[in-house]
Amino acid sequence: MPKNSISESVIKRLPRYYRFLGELMNSGVERISSGQLSELMKLTASQIRQDLNCFGGFGQQGYGYNVAGLREEIGRILGVDRQLPTIIIGAGNLGKAIAAHINFETRGCVLKGIFDIDPKITGETVADIAVRHIDELEKFCRDKKPVVAVLCIPKAATQEIADRLVDLGIRAFWNFSHYDLSAKHSSVAVENVHLGDSLLTLTYRANQMTDNG
Amino acid sequence: MPKNSISESVIKRLPRYYRFLGELMNSGVERISSGQLSELMKLTASQIRQDLNCFGGFGQQGYGYNVAGLREEIGRILGVDRQLPTIIIGAGNLGKAIAAHINFETRGCVLKGIFDIDPKITGETVADIAVRHIDELEKFCRDKKPVVAVLCIPKAATQEIADRLVDLGIRAFWNFSHYDLSAKHSSVAVENVHLGDSLLTLTYRANQMTDNG
Repeated sequence: MPKNSISESVIKRLPRYYRFLGELMNSGVERISSGQLSELMKLTASQIRQDLNCFGGFGQQGYGYNVAGLREEIGRILGVDRQLPTIIIGAGNLGKAIAAHINFETRGCVLKGIFDIDPKITGETVADIAVRHIDELEKFCRDKKPVVAVLCIPKAATQEIADRLVDLGIRAFWNFSHYDLSAKHSSVAVENVHLGDSLLTLTYRANQMTDNG
Repeated sequence: MPKNSISESVIKRLPRYYRFLGELMNSGVERISSGQLSELMKLTASQIRQDLNCFGGFGQQGYGYNVAGLREEIGRILGVDRQLPTIIIGAGNLGKAIAAHINFETRGCVLKGIFDIDPKITGETVADIAVRHIDELEKFCRDKKPVVAVLCIPKAATQEIADRLVDLGIRAFWNFSHYDLSAKHSSVAVENVHLGDSLLTLTYRANQMTDNG
C-alpha cells in the first residue's frame, strides 16, 4: 500500500492510535474490538474501522484487532524507527522542559544538540547534552547533519533562525514560537504547537460546567 | 442562540479562529471573505461558512466577515472575559515555561498560585508569583477558590493530586501529565496535552519529504 494514499486526517489521528495501542500493550491486551477501542478513544467504531482498514490485515470480523501488529504497522508508517537527528534552538525553560520530558527516540528522533544565544546558559547540561552557543550552529550542522529543529525561541527571533536552519539542511520544524513558518518555507515540514488554543478550549469547557451545573 | 447548540467539533476550531482573527486585527484588517480566511486557515470556505453561521450576523454575502465583531463574539462564547482563578501544580521546567510563556489573562484565566513538592524550588519566583509548597494547597484553595489547575507533574503523582484538587473545588484541568484524568473524574473538564503526538506527526512528515524528495 503506497503511503501517499493515507489522507491527511487519518495521519493526524495515527499518533493517537499509536499511543493508545502502546498503553493497551503495556496492560497486556493482545486483541481489541473496534467497539472497545471506540469507547477508549472516544471515536465512533465505524470511524476506527474506516481509519484502520487502510492498513489491512490486522482486523478480523468478530476477532478484533491484533494490538501489537497494528501498533507496529502504524509505527512503521509514522517512521518511529528512523531516528532523525534533531536539535533544539532555545534552552530557556521551554527548551529545557522539552529536552527533559519528551522521549525523542520513541518518536523517530534523536536529540543531538541544544543551542542558545545567552552565554549564561551555554555550557549548562540539559538531558545529558551541553548547551552550545548559537554561533556554533553552522559547524555543528555540517558535521552532524540534523534534519529536525525544535524552535523554543521568541517570535521575533524565529524568521532569521529558521532561514539559517533551512539553508543548513533542516527540513522539519517543531515550532513553539508563534511565527508562521510555513508561509515562507513551503518546502519544509512544520508542526506548530499552539498551547494557547488548548487552554482556550479548556476555558470554554470550564465555563460551560459553571453555567450549566 | 443557546451555547449548547454549538457542536464539539466547532468548539475545537473556535480557539484557532479566535487566534487568526486576532492576528488579522493586529494587521489592521477590518473585513475578510470566507475565501481569504479559508486560504489563511487551510480550511475549505464552505467549512468556514458553516462554522461561522452559528454566530450569525457577522458575514454578509459579498462583503465578508467583520473581523473585530466576529472575534469578539467568539471570545464571548469561549469566555475570555471570565478570568477564572488558576493554579499550576509542579514548578519544574515545564511548569515554569507555562507560567512564563502562556498569557493566561487573554485566555480567560488568571494565574493565582504555583505549587511544588520540592523545598528547593518553593520560594522561587516564577511569573511574579512565589512558588508555594504543596502542603499549603488546602489553605490556599479555601482562601482563593481556584477553579482551573495546570498539572505539570509526573504521571505517578497525578491521581492523588487530582483527587485532592477535585475535593478542593477545581473543576477544570489542563493536563500535561500522561495520566488519564477523565476516566475517574467525569464531572470535571479535562484538556490533555500530548506533545508527543505532535512530534510523531512531524516525524511522519519529515520522512515523507525525504522519501519523496
